[in-house]
Formats: sequence, C-alpha cells, structure tokens
Amino acid sequence: MQSTMQDVPLLVSRITTHGSTIHGHAEVRTWTGDAAATQRRTYAEVGARAAQLAHALRDELGVQESGVVGTLMWNNAEHLEAYLAIPSMGAVLHTLNLRLPVEQLAYIVNHAADRVIIVNGSLLPLLAPLLPHLGSVEHVIVSGPGDRSALAGCRAQVHEYEELLVGRPEHYDWPELDERQAAALCYTSGTTGDPKGVAYSHRSVYLHAMEVNAAAAFGLTPADVCAPLVPMFHVNAWGLPHAAFMAGTSLLMPDRFLQPAPLAEMIATERPTVSAGVPTIWAGLLAELDARPRDLSSLRTVISGGSAAPPAMMRGFHERHGVRLVQAWGMTETSPLGSVAYPPAGLSEEEEWPYRVTQGRLPSSVEARLAGPGGEILPWDGQSAGELEVRGPWIAGAYYGGAAGEPVRPEDKFSPDGWLRTGDVGTITSDGFLTLTDRAKDVIKSGGEWISSVELENHLMAHPDVAEAAVVAVPDDKWGERPLAAIVLKDGKPADYAALRAFLGERVARWQLPERWVRIATVPKTSVGKFDKKVLRKQYAEGELEVTVLGG
Amino acid sequence: MQSTMQDVPLLVSRITTHGSTIHGHAEVRTWTGDAAATQRRTYAEVGARAAQLAHALRDELGVQESGVVGTLMWNNAEHLEAYLAIPSMGAVLHTLNLRLPVEQLAYIVNHAADRVIIVNGSLLPLLAPLLPHLGSVEHVIVSGPGDRSALAGCRAQVHEYEELLVGRPEHYDWPELDERQAAALCYTSGTTGDPKGVAYSHRSVYLHAMEVNAAAAFGLTPADVCAPLVPMFHVNAWGLPHAAFMAGTSLLMPDRFLQPAPLAEMIATERPTVSAGVPTIWAGLLAELDARPRDLSSLRTVISGGSAAPPAMMRGFHERHGVRLVQAWGMTETSPLGSVAYPPAGLSEEEEWPYRVTQGRLPSSVEARLAGPGGEILPWDGQSAGELEVRGPWIAGAYYGGAAGEPVRPEDKFSPDGWLRTGDVGTITSDGFLTLTDRAKDVIKSGGEWISSVELENHLMAHPDVAEAAVVAVPDDKWGERPLAAIVLKDGKPADYAALRAFLGERVARWQLPERWVRIATVPKTSVGKFDKKVLRKQYAEGELEVTVLGG
Repeated sequence: MQSTMQDVPLLVSRITTHGSTIHGHAEVRTWTGDAAATQRRTYAEVGARAAQLAHALRDELGVQESGVVGTLMWNNAEHLEAYLAIPSMGAVLHTLNLRLPVEQLAYIVNHAADRVIIVNGSLLPLLAPLLPHLGSVEHVIVSGPGDRSALAGCRAQVHEYEELLVGRPEHYDWPELDERQAAALCYTSGTTGDPKGVAYSHRSVYLHAMEVNAAAAFGLTPADVCAPLVPMFHVNAWGLPHAAFMAGTSLLMPDRFLQPAPLAEMIATERPTVSAGVPTIWAGLLAELDARPRDLSSLRTVISGGSAAPPAMMRGFHERHGVRLVQAWGMTETSPLGSVAYPPAGLSEEEEWPYRVTQGRLPSSVEARLAGPGGEILPWDGQSAGELEVRGPWIAGAYYGGAAGEPVRPEDKFSPDGWLRTGDVGTITSDGFLTLTDRAKDVIKSGGEWISSVELENHLMAHPDVAEAAVVAVPDDKWGERPLAAIVLKDGKPADYAALRAFLGERVARWQLPERWVRIATVPKTSVGKFDKKVLRKQYAEGELEVTVLGG
Repeated sequence: MQSTMQDVPLLVSRITTHGSTIHGHAEVRTWTGDAAATQRRTYAEVGARAAQLAHALRDELGVQESGVVGTLMWNNAEHLEAYLAIPSMGAVLHTLNLRLPVEQLAYIVNHAADRVIIVNGSLLPLLAPLLPHLGSVEHVIVSGPGDRSALAGCRAQVHEYEELLVGRPEHYDWPELDERQAAALCYTSGTTGDPKGVAYSHRSVYLHAMEVNAAAAFGLTPADVCAPLVPMFHVNAWGLPHAAFMAGTSLLMPDRFLQPAPLAEMIATERPTVSAGVPTIWAGLLAELDARPRDLSSLRTVISGGSAAPPAMMRGFHERHGVRLVQAWGMTETSPLGSVAYPPAGLSEEEEWPYRVTQGRLPSSVEARLAGPGGEILPWDGQSAGELEVRGPWIAGAYYGGAAGEPVRPEDKFSPDGWLRTGDVGTITSDGFLTLTDRAKDVIKSGGEWISSVELENHLMAHPDVAEAAVVAVPDDKWGERPLAAIVLKDGKPADYAALRAFLGERVARWQLPERWVRIATVPKTSVGKFDKKVLRKQYAEGELEVTVLGG
C-alpha cells in the first residue's frame, strides 16, 4: 500500500529557511581575540547574506548546480553562510582542510575540480603559493583580515567577500533538489594513499542534523549556545552548524583562536552551553585551566571525539573544573555521528565511569556489526573482538571519484554487501556499548583469532620495569601471524622476558602470549605522537631487531 | 553530483531492532489498576514477541505485504508489539478508534479491508456485535482479560493472542521495504462526511519519531519514562511509542484506566518523567489532584494537545502542583507533531505565559504559510489571520482511498500545489509563534477580509450582562458574509444590542461589528460540548430567529 504522505525532500535549504525565519533572532558570534569586540550576526542576517552569496556565486561567478565551491576558512560567520548558501543553491560545498600537507591540499582541490574557493585573509599565505597548481580554480573570494598582496598576479579572478554580497537580493528561491544529490564534500586525510572524498547528500546532512539535535545525542535547543571547536573543515564540524541552524541554537565560533588561553577566555566570556572538539584541544584547555582557573559553569555538554579521550583528562575536567566530557565516536565516512557515551540512567558517578570511557551507544539510524578475522559476524557479548562495520543513511557507501568521477568502493573499506568497514576493532556489549581497542591494521590475526595489540601493550606497560611497550604482528608459518613484543625498559632494569611473559600470562589467555621479544631504545612515533608500528614491522622484516624467542 | 552515501531506507523495522537490542533493558510497564501488579516487559522481550506476532500473522494467518491488520486496543504492551510487528513485516497497522460511533467503526474497517483485528478482551462487547458487518475480517485475535463468549458463533476465526505467539521464532528477518510504503493507517473522525484515512509511510513515521526525540520537542532519552495518556488509536499516540522504542525510553501504559483517580495513582506510583494527553484528561487530573494531592514531581515535561489547553488549567497545574504543561499542536494529517509551545529562553515566568498559550513554533521539517480569504499568502506579523497550510515529509498530501483505493485530494483539504489545508485560522509572529483562533469554517468572510467569530465571542462574553455568545456567518448581499451575534443574557438583563455593539466597538475594528443580533435561550452544543454553529446557521436560514438589525 502506498502512503498518502507528501513527498517532500530533505534539503539543506529547509534548514537555511527555517533557521533564518523562525529562529531569526538567534545569532552567530565570532570571537575576534578581543572580548569587547565579538562579532554578532543574527540568523535572519545570516540567511539574507547566504541568499546574497548564492546570487553572487550564480549570477556573477556562474556557479551552477553540482558546481564545486571550496572553502579554506576558520570557524566563523562567513563560513556558516557558505555552509548554508552553497548546498541550498544546489552546488557542492567542499571544505578544505588547512592542516593537510600542501600536496594533498592541491590534490583534493584538483580532484574535486573546485571552480571557486572562498578563503579567509589570514590563510592566503597557505593558498597563494598553491594557486598556480590548482587548474580548475577560476575565482578566489577573500573574507576577513589578512594581506591580499600574495594574490597579485594570480590567474584566478579575485573578489572581496563583502563587496561581492553588497546590493544583491536578500532572498533566493532555493531550488527543489533530489535529496540524494551531493551537498558537501570532505576528503579523509588517510595516512596511506591519496585522500579520499566523501560526498554527503542533502538527505544525509539533514538526517544527521536531526540526530545531533536528539536529546540523547547533543540535544541542541534555542536555549543553548553551541561552540564548535572542531574545525568546520573537519567532517562539517560534526554537523553542529547545520544542527544549530535547524534548532535555533546560537553559535559561538572561535575563528582562528584555537590556542588554550584564548579558548578559555572565549568560553568564560561568551558562556556557551555546549561545545565539541578533539582530545588535543581539551588536553590543552585542561592544562590552561589548571594553571589559571576560569568559570566554565555555562557548559552543560562537552563532546570529545576524533580519538579516544584519556580517562585521566576526563576525570581532571570533572573533578577539578566541574565539566563533564562526553565521548563520541565517528569518522569522516560516518558524517560523523556514530555513537555517544552517555552512561545508563540511575548509576552513581563512580559506576558511570566504565561506560563513559567506552565509545558509547549507536543511534537507531546507525546499524553495527563486528566482523571476525574470517569475516564471520561476532556476538555482542562484550568479549568477542571484531572489526566494526556500520550501515545507515548518513554512512558512506563509496568514495567520490576515481579518475573519471565515478564512485569507488575499495574492498578494504566496504564489504560486498555495502557496509562501511571502519578499520576499528572492538567489542560491543549486549546492551550496545561499543569499545574500540585497535585499528584493524594493528591487530594480530593468529590462527583464526584476533589478538589485541593494544591490550597486550597496556598490560605490559603496567609492569614496574617497563617504560613503554609496542606489540606488532609478525608473520608466522603455523599461525599466520603472531605478536612481537617490543619493550622499552626503565633505566637499569633487566630484560627478563620470561618474567614479563609470566606477568602477562596472569592477565590474558595463554594463546595470546608473545613468543618473540625484543628490547628497543624507544618506540618509533608518528608526527602526531602515535606509535608507528609500520616502522617496527619493517625493522623486523629486514632482520634489524635482535629477537629472543620464548616458550611456544 | 551524486552523493556517495549508503542508500538505506528509513523503516519501522529499524526502530524495532534497535530498541530491542541496544535498549533491550528498557521496559514497557502496563498499569493493571493494582499498584502492586504492574505488568513489566523488557524491550528485548517486546522485540522477541513482536517477531513471534509477525510469524503468526504471516505463517498462520496468511497476512502478506500491504495486508491490513486492525487493532482495537488500549495502550498496553501488546498494542506496542502490534505497533512494531505489523509495519516491520511490511503489513499495515490500522488503529481503530474505539470512541467512534459504531457505524463509523464498521465503515473504516470495511474501507481499509482489515483482514485481521487484534482486540482487547475488554472491548469485545464493542466489536462482537459489529463483526457480522465487517466483511473483510477473517481473523480476530483476542488479548487480555474479558469474556470471550460474545464471539461464539462469529464467522471469523478466533485466536488467543498468547497462544498464537507461543513457540514461534523470536527472530524475524524483517524485509527491506520502500520507505514510502504505508506503515500505518489512521482515520480522522471528521464531523462531516465519512471518516478519511491517512496512510503514514515508514519514512514519515521514522522522521516523526526522530523529531519527537529532538531536545526542542519532547526530548526522550534512555533516562526517561514516558506515559502516553493519548490513546494509541489516536494518531499513533502522537508517535510516542515509536519514539520511545527508538530512544530506549521506557514506556508506562495506562491500559483502560484513563479516569482521573487511577491516572493520578499510576503517575505517583510509577513516576514517569514525560507524559502527553488531551486537555480533557489534564482537566480531570487537575480536579483530582486539587481534591487529593499526589506527588507528581517525577514529571519534567507534560504535553497537552488535540485542542487548546485553557490557560487557567495550565496555571493551576503550574502553581498548585508544580507541573509544567506544554502546549503542542497537530492533527491526524500531521502525524501529528506540528508545533510545540516552548517560550524563548531567558524570560521570567510571567513573561513566558504569552508564549506558552500559543500553539508554539514549528520544527524545520514542517513548513507553514497563512492563506487569506482570497488565497493570498499573508505576512508573519502576528496580526494577519489566515488559514494555516502546512507542508512536510510527515504531512498528509491526500487521503487513503476512494472506492477503488486510489488517493483522494479534496479541494478544501489540499491546495493545488499540494499543501495541507488545516482548517485552522490564526496568526504567526515574525519569530514563528503560531496562534490558532478559529476553525476556517467558523470564520466570517466579509468583503475579502476575515472576521474571527471566536474573538467577537470572547469580547461579548466579557460583558457583564452576557452569559454566553455565539457569532456565526450569515449570507449578505453586499459583503458576501456578515456576523450574526447570538446572545444568551444573564437572568434579568435587558437585550440592549446597541450597548453591546458599543462595548464591542471599543475592542475591535468598526467593520467587524455585527449588524444582526438575536437573543437565544442557550447556545446549541455538540455531544462534546463545543458550540454547534451549524444549528444556528440553519435556524437563521430557515427564518427561525428573531433578528434585530442595527447600524450598518
């Protein structure tokens, strides 16, 4: 039986119109580094300016439906206008990650064929030298303070953002689009290979914003002020700008002032109720607050995501500053809202901690399964570890564009039945709490079972003689792979591998115990401080490590 | 540009699976009239039983995709199971309004061609006499206490709900459906003509449940216990059962105990945090609480909808019992969530009242416009009154089935461009607060302007001589329509129409003043106590009223 409901598409333009009319009094505030000079703009003004921007892009610059417009911008009011205008008019917003290596930045602009780039003046020193390598870019629109001289002589036409808007109509008749059309494009900064594009649809952006606004997620309301510290070039700032405009929640934007001291100052002055950012931001802020306490009592919900938040940091915020960090999990391919770690109701504060340090529970729109080493689906028993695979209306099912722009579905990222392979390994409890422990590439596949390198490392690092420990998979004729334990000993401590193995034997199953042991001076690390296990595996393969073999 | 997101449909089965796994520990409690004997069932059990019910319906009773299954049930756990099982398996849930006149009940069962009816034992005295007139019904499934003897000799096969479930598989491989397929069917109990069916889609049910769970709407979370007092046969209990199962919110069901005393007892005992019902329910509960106070402090959000809540009642709850009623507006055709009256943030309690007595603001997914007497679109200025028209993914665009089952779109209910004409007249302020004043059929269309009958009545009833007043439209050669004021005077007061007209003249524009006046003994009323203006218009048309004509 067909339903009798209206067939109305889920479009970003609906968010734009709704926020700028019904919530026209809400406002976006942009921090300027000066507490007395915060820039304020109502949502009614943002809506009018978004219409002007769309007119400029279409009427002056010739941007058409599905045309790609890049933004190289901080979190500010103008970036919000671009977020709304570009998808609403049927074009595609391509947020450019200003922290990417420049070759990758050039690659993604060329790959997406951006015709226009809107750039903050302060980022011209990054963009200008790249421009000669960006063949598709015909127009550069500059917004905000910064020396324009670097653009002298560039091939693209240069426009001032404010001049481009002035005098244009404050209303735009947003087109009725197919909700499955692309609204925004974001490339993952994968550590291997070229960046890969995820093209979010109007449908996925809209549904994701609705979920962000669920009381059980971030729960934005018109009474809130939301400060997205996560950059708007990073997975749409976790959907918060769209969600805030949808809910009529005022936004507080840090612009380029992401250092701990100005962030603390901004929060204490502007008093947001909700904020979101990566653990690095929170760790910096915590150190700042410990040194110079501020009043952060306005914050009711603070989301930490992007990587696991150290429990000690969460406790530090909670116990020393009364701020409750909530962990959430997601990735570029998941829009990103995958799970949020609210504990079950009715627990004491101490009982809540084991739940708060998990990745949390998934919303109804995101299905999860754990795939074991042989691809078999594992039970949700809190014990069986498998690669997390997810499915849902805001989960990627492909990447944008091979050479000819067609969708690509690499086997290691998408299962044959279309689920996203997250590359994260973990467990799920019977009541749906997800705990991620390893990246799939770091797990040891031993005789059809998986051994968690992270679990072995954590146990080893709890031994009083051990300073650091890294466990990596090495090839094994009988088992396929086996763990190699690489140990950094504390000064003067002996390399007593048998004792370490016995220590581990009290904590994990016997078949998980490493046979191969090696003492190293230091664990190789990546530029962001993570263990670089590739290096260890290579050293082992090339016979550079002096390995002791025990037991078996 | 096409997006790269997965194409995953929004289906009720996702709610079923999500609630019964990730929130398997949440529970539905059904009140039994005995505080010591509340029936408790976990969502894991509900999910297993929903699977068993679906197996029974398909394997034993032959219900196929798009087959219609009626429910004639109170709010209880078994009705929840039917809510989940029937749409999830691809069939259509048809909730039967047990308060309809029996001829209408028979009409809707026959019109929708229900093959199966699930009925509570206590409602067999209503169903049994109707069965001979329900040609499509092949199976009756009886659940819960009640004398079965009334079914003796009926043509349909009779089954016991619990016996039908026992031993069947607790898992059902829910089919992947088109999200635009019908999930549930609900008929409006229109006062004129036959009831009209609204066929909700999986998409509309799912999106509506997401909106119910928005923090700015009802904001259900796993920490809540939600008590839907609005019947499940009335617009899907305002979407709360689906929303609660989606959010992992426990449900508290009143079953047939809807009288004020047992409701007060249930709330005080089971301590729900959220509840929802019509003003009549709340008025009864308020009187009960005033007489015998109970502890209702568990309630954080109480929604009143279906008709306007009297401000005095809202104040009574607030001031005498600390319970905050929130008005919401909707109708069968709007799923029903149309608007919710939360005041803007930062106001004092007294400043909040003018907002709380409006119908509130619409969510982003519901577009609104006001159509004036000539169909012209009116501004949102808080003054211009027009008929409210709405559009959105959970708004009806047609009714289910003429004689051959095709969708029908009567002109008075749907605009040529597909918007729903709500039949409600009101204003919208520039910040989106909707105030509904009249039913469109009661508005006086005078010379291209609308005159609110309700406004004139309210002013007249404020006059010390007037006991009651009804204002109706009567034909007028010059203006099309003009108001007729029908007055019930207090004992011994004179029929001084000139004085009343002058009194009114101080309060409304001169062109709105009635010329025609009549004294009546009492205002004719409908069975539910509303002014029956049809009767007055007929009496006027047939010359039965002794009308005085003034001014002009």
